[in-house]
Amino acid sequence: MAGLFVTFEGGDGSGKSTQSALLQQWLEEEQHREVVLSREPGGTDLGLELREIILHRRGYIAPRAEALIYAADRAHHIATKVRPAIERGAVVLQDRYLDSSIAYQGTGRELDPEEVRRLSLWAAEGLLPDLTVLLDLDPEIGRARLVESRTRYDRLEAEEHDFHSRVREAYLRLAAAEPKRFLVLPADDPVDTIASRVRTRVASLL
Amino acid sequence: MAGLFVTFEGGDGSGKSTQSALLQQWLEEEQHREVVLSREPGGTDLGLELREIILHRRGYIAPRAEALIYAADRAHHIATKVRPAIERGAVVLQDRYLDSSIAYQGTGRELDPEEVRRLSLWAAEGLLPDLTVLLDLDPEIGRARLVESRTRYDRLEAEEHDFHSRVREAYLRLAAAEPKRFLVLPADDPVDTIASRVRTRVASLL
Repeated sequence: MAGLFVTFEGGDGSGKSTQSALLQQWLEEEQHREVVLSREPGGTDLGLELREIILHRRGYIAPRAEALIYAADRAHHIATKVRPAIERGAVVLQDRYLDSSIAYQGTGRELDPEEVRRLSLWAAEGLLPDLTVLLDLDPEIGRARLVESRTRYDRLEAEEHDFHSRVREAYLRLAAAEPKRFLVLPADDPVDTIASRVRTRVASLL
Repeated sequence: MAGLFVTFEGGDGSGKSTQSALLQQWLEEEQHREVVLSREPGGTDLGLELREIILHRRGYIAPRAEALIYAADRAHHIATKVRPAIERGAVVLQDRYLDSSIAYQGTGRELDPEEVRRLSLWAAEGLLPDLTVLLDLDPEIGRARLVESRTRYDRLEAEEHDFHSRVREAYLRLAAAEPKRFLVLPADDPVDTIASRVRTRVASLL
C-alpha cells in the first residue's frame, strides 16, 4: 500500500486541527489505514526545542535566523518521522509545512519567497505533499476565533492584521500556482461540509 | 576608521583561542582599536541555546538539520553582532565561521560542500572575512592537546579520527581556493611565532 502525505495550511483559527482530526478518524475507522498526525514546527523532540525558541522566546530574532530554524525543524522532522512513515505505507497528516514557511517567512517577513522555498526543499530533500488543504479565512475571523478559545498568543499570532492579510494573499498565490496539489476551501463553511470535501479528495488519492 | 573581520579556523586543540586572545591584546594595546571577540556557534544569547542543542544534545540529529541550526546561529550572530561592530569600525575576531561549516558539515557529514557554502552565505547575507587564519594541525596532535586539557568532549570532538582527517583536508582545499583571504600557519609552531605572523598580516590590512 502506497503512503500518502497530506498537509493542512491556513491562518490561525482556520480549523486545521479540527479537520485533520476528522480526516484521521475516517482514514483509521473507514479505510483502516495507519495515520501519523504531525505538525511543524515541533513534530519531533528536537523540533519541540526549536519550536519553543521560535514561538515563545523573548527578544528579536533575525529574519533569516528564524527561517533557518524552521528549516532545521523541517529537515529533522521529514528525515526521521515523515519519510519513514510514508515509506512504510502510512498516511501522514501534517499541520503546516513548506507553504507556511513561504507565506509567513517569505512574504510576511519580507524575505524572498523563492529563496525560502528553495531553503525548505533543501531541508526536506525535495519532498512535496500529495495534497495540501488550504483553509482560507479572513484573518479578522480567525483572530476572533482565537480570542474565544482564550489560548495564549504566540510570537506570530501577536503580529499585526496587515501581516496576516499578506500571509493570506501569499497562500492564495501558492495555491493558484499549483492547482493540482492544493485544495482550497472556505474555512467558514460548516465543519462537516469541509470534512466531506477533504475526504472526497483524499479518497481519490488512496 | 574601517572595520575589519578576521576569523580563526582549525581543528580542536589548534590554538585558535590563544591566538585570538594575543591578537586582541595587540590590537587594543598597541593599535588602540575596539575589538569584538566572538565565536560560532554561540556568539549571541539565541546562539547559546542553539549551540547547546548542536553540541551537547543527546540523540541523532539529521545532517541537514544540523547544518541549518549552524546557519541559523550564523544568521542571527552576523545580523545582530558582527555587522554592527564592523560598521562602527571595530575589529571582529571570530572563532570559527563559514569555513568550519563547509569543512565539518559539508565534507565531514557528507553533505555537498557547495550547498553548505551557499546556505552559509545566504544566512550571512554574503559576508566574507577580510582574513581567515587557518591553524593547520595533525588531528592526532590536536586530540592529545585536548586530552591534556581535560575538557569534556562535545559531539564533534568525539567523532572518529578519519572524520577529523577529512576536515583537515577540506580546510586546506578551501585555503588553496582562496589564497588571498587565507593565512595558513602550522599550528605546532611556537605560539609567539604564530602570533607574530598573524600580527604582520593584520597590520597590512588595518
